[in-house]
Amino acid sequence: MTSALCEQFGIDFPLFAFSHCRDVVAAVTNAGGFGVLGATAYTPEQLDRELSWIDEQVNGKPYGADIIVPAKFEGKGEKDVTAQKLADRIPQQYRDFINELLAAHDIEPEPKPKLGGTSLSGDTGKELLEVAMSHPIKLIANALGVPPDYMLEAGREHGVPVAALVGAREHAVKQVRAGVDLIIAQGTEAGGHTGEVTTMVLIPEVIEAIEAEGANVPVLAAGGIVTGRQMAAAVAMGAAGAWTGSVWLTTEEAETAPYTVQKLLAASSRDTIRSAGRTGKPSRQLKSAWTEAWLPSDGGRQPLPLPLQSMISEPVLRRIDALAAQGHKGAQQLATYFVGQGVGLMNKVKPAREVVREFIEDYLAATERLSNSLPS
Amino acid sequence: MTSALCEQFGIDFPLFAFSHCRDVVAAVTNAGGFGVLGATAYTPEQLDRELSWIDEQVNGKPYGADIIVPAKFEGKGEKDVTAQKLADRIPQQYRDFINELLAAHDIEPEPKPKLGGTSLSGDTGKELLEVAMSHPIKLIANALGVPPDYMLEAGREHGVPVAALVGAREHAVKQVRAGVDLIIAQGTEAGGHTGEVTTMVLIPEVIEAIEAEGANVPVLAAGGIVTGRQMAAAVAMGAAGAWTGSVWLTTEEAETAPYTVQKLLAASSRDTIRSAGRTGKPSRQLKSAWTEAWLPSDGGRQPLPLPLQSMISEPVLRRIDALAAQGHKGAQQLATYFVGQGVGLMNKVKPAREVVREFIEDYLAATERLSNSLPS
Repeated sequence: MTSALCEQFGIDFPLFAFSHCRDVVAAVTNAGGFGVLGATAYTPEQLDRELSWIDEQVNGKPYGADIIVPAKFEGKGEKDVTAQKLADRIPQQYRDFINELLAAHDIEPEPKPKLGGTSLSGDTGKELLEVAMSHPIKLIANALGVPPDYMLEAGREHGVPVAALVGAREHAVKQVRAGVDLIIAQGTEAGGHTGEVTTMVLIPEVIEAIEAEGANVPVLAAGGIVTGRQMAAAVAMGAAGAWTGSVWLTTEEAETAPYTVQKLLAASSRDTIRSAGRTGKPSRQLKSAWTEAWLPSDGGRQPLPLPLQSMISEPVLRRIDALAAQGHKGAQQLATYFVGQGVGLMNKVKPAREVVREFIEDYLAATERLSNSLPS
Repeated sequence: MTSALCEQFGIDFPLFAFSHCRDVVAAVTNAGGFGVLGATAYTPEQLDRELSWIDEQVNGKPYGADIIVPAKFEGKGEKDVTAQKLADRIPQQYRDFINELLAAHDIEPEPKPKLGGTSLSGDTGKELLEVAMSHPIKLIANALGVPPDYMLEAGREHGVPVAALVGAREHAVKQVRAGVDLIIAQGTEAGGHTGEVTTMVLIPEVIEAIEAEGANVPVLAAGGIVTGRQMAAAVAMGAAGAWTGSVWLTTEEAETAPYTVQKLLAASSRDTIRSAGRTGKPSRQLKSAWTEAWLPSDGGRQPLPLPLQSMISEPVLRRIDALAAQGHKGAQQLATYFVGQGVGLMNKVKPAREVVREFIEDYLAATERLSNSLPS
């Protein structure tokens, strides 16, 4: 493709691949797309190692990093908010509720369960950003609100475009006014944190809003996109390319556990749900006994705010994943995984390079299909 | 356009317009699209009058009718289920709940509120179908399950293709096996009854599933589509055309009340919600104090099954609409309206003919945009 975005980023095909796995990032970048490493869960030292490894693999080809610094979270703006002080805000009844849920699925509760990190409070965001900027990254992406000033400033200083994920037109306008260089408009069908508006409506809405601002900020389409024909659909609506995540989970390079891969391959588009039961903010994931337990509409419990909900849920979910992989039936009922509705179209494990190739072929076929709909 | 579908239906542009208003149906058909009259709420006599009027306007050009006969509803298969017997199944606490809701919004409850009809139990479906078939309709559409045998047989007998709306891949397969001629795959962003899967995911999923059946049944894309670029996106993904509804509500021809039109023009894509509070099955509509009252997750009440919920809600909602139009503040908070997320892109009242023209222009521009994304 010969779009302005391809020229700007030095890529052959404007397919952006978000992954927590460095192998996927490198493979997509080497195949002519643009890999983006999800960095939030790493320590600064770990991130440095991962990015150094990618640098060795991609031989100067472009890639990016994604660091989530939420604009709002429990404890923001308070002085000396330690993890312990946040932990003290978790009501005992929530710990009891989780222990009962585990017991109901034949899992022994731990007497003193560890709490998860507070990475979603952005407490390591600045350090992670500094590490990322010490590598030749070509994009820094943020989610859950306008990026903090230090991220926008670092981007300008290092000449690295800053991207922001948004799920609503109003948020896109706010981001553009704050000076973001690239908008990722993510529909409700996406895996992970999402809003309510679908990709089909959100893309034209966001593009229209940015035009109305008189701004010239490209929009990547995200949400449900796991094939080239969907990417072509987004470009027909005015998107400059696609931002993808779920489709890489079932690639050969991904570190997804074999049990989870099987669950993803078998899942239909109706097997996901937007649930706040994992991080405290609605995020799309596989439906399971865990997501059911946090559905207030079905008598479940109202989740805690970000990051308290992750602090209690993530360590437990990791234990559940490990047990599920060993064949524990109760754990298999509870296990969930961040993934979008596109999971219904993911039916085979493939190398990431092959996914990129199929995307391109399918994109070309879709372009031809649309052209052929007109009288010649 | 020169698609097989255009040839089959004798139209210039595969834009199908669902409307309860005969003027919209005739205007779209006369502009080169395909108008479809939503017939379920009419008596057989009324429907005959409406279709005769359309016949006079369109001069032989093609149009269709939509008659909803749900596959499942309260009382189905029972002998002698009268409206009164169904009414007896509505618990008193539901009537009380509605009266309290009205009182909380300064609306005097009626001492003996009328009950709505049971049209959604399909009790007049057969008669409506006979009336429709006595006119030169070119399509009959059904929703909420596989069409009853009498509809499929009447279609074959009269040479009228039968279409079915589906919101999930599995439902499309069932419909194709039952012998339906056209699938309308409707994403969750659509107004009215919808499933959970978004248009962007559902279209490729349904097309893939029909191909896997070895069937040759065209798919119309529905859900959120109010512009030509979105229609082009759907065609790029393999759809044969678009089925639209919301966009016609703010046309000059529509009988939408002026107060409602203003509300629709002002609404953003985030102002709709899938709520069962109107018919007992999830349907997308404007968020309001009414839809909130039926959200079990926020302490609201669990709606009754189809058609009991419509029986208690529709007459009240009509009263609310009338009061809202007169400026009653409480009624304005309660008033809702079936509409999809595309409402966020509907910002101006236009003649229906103009909407068709803009669709075509926008479709052409989108096709060019996608073609231009490739190296020449």
